[in-house]
Amino acid sequence: MQNESLGFSTARMVELGSDESLALLASVPMGRIGFTYQALPVIRPVNHLVDGDDIVIRTHTGAALLSSTSVAEVVVYEADHLDQQTRTGWSVMVTGRATRITDPLEVARYQEHLIPWVDMDMDMVIRVSAEIVTGYRLEH
Amino acid sequence: MQNESLGFSTARMVELGSDESLALLASVPMGRIGFTYQALPVIRPVNHLVDGDDIVIRTHTGAALLSSTSVAEVVVYEADHLDQQTRTGWSVMVTGRATRITDPLEVARYQEHLIPWVDMDMDMVIRVSAEIVTGYRLEH
Repeated sequence: MQNESLGFSTARMVELGSDESLALLASVPMGRIGFTYQALPVIRPVNHLVDGDDIVIRTHTGAALLSSTSVAEVVVYEADHLDQQTRTGWSVMVTGRATRITDPLEVARYQEHLIPWVDMDMDMVIRVSAEIVTGYRLEH
Repeated sequence: MQNESLGFSTARMVELGSDESLALLASVPMGRIGFTYQALPVIRPVNHLVDGDDIVIRTHTGAALLSSTSVAEVVVYEADHLDQQTRTGWSVMVTGRATRITDPLEVARYQEHLIPWVDMDMDMVIRVSAEIVTGYRLEH
């Protein structure tokens, strides 16, 4: 069991508006997508783009996300930037339907800007529509 | 829509064993817990301790996690350390039942080592038993 350092002050949690939250999300390259797969919750780190009110990610055919159904599934996308030294930063959470982008021109445009980290064939491009956006900032 | 930098090579994904995954999880102070609340997926960043095969976190009374039921709920806990420059690192995902720790001595022991970031009354201590542990490393 690791110890935490003592002697710091705890932070205040300040709620952020939707626009500010999406702007913060767009300022970082990666986040974590959460969804349910075979009745169990799953979290996967992925890189993302923010395009208007949409979060766009790539995944591979056969990935757990969207593999069981073609119907839009409700997912959560979370990104944060939290400094472990100062214990300040922010976290943004977007909830919305995930759908596969199928238009070839749109797919090509996103694939050009969204380069996978892993050497797998990440041929599926997924859009998460930001239907609920919440965020907070931790500050002293 | 932000651009990603080009000209890097993609990484290879190497699966990790359970012991190595838990050791990596224990090497970082924070991760993200994922669960379902009112039929929607939720992800929250929290700080954690690893104690044997248990992940221990703190939360406040009335938090979404465990608020709707006293029955153990299946949650996921994910932590990672991913370098955006080299695009290498690791991610570990633990799935298991979340239960509230009620033994006062145990609660006190964990509260001593697990200091909340936020100035809320984080009086609930939650144990996630690591029933399924998966992890991977990205390397070149």
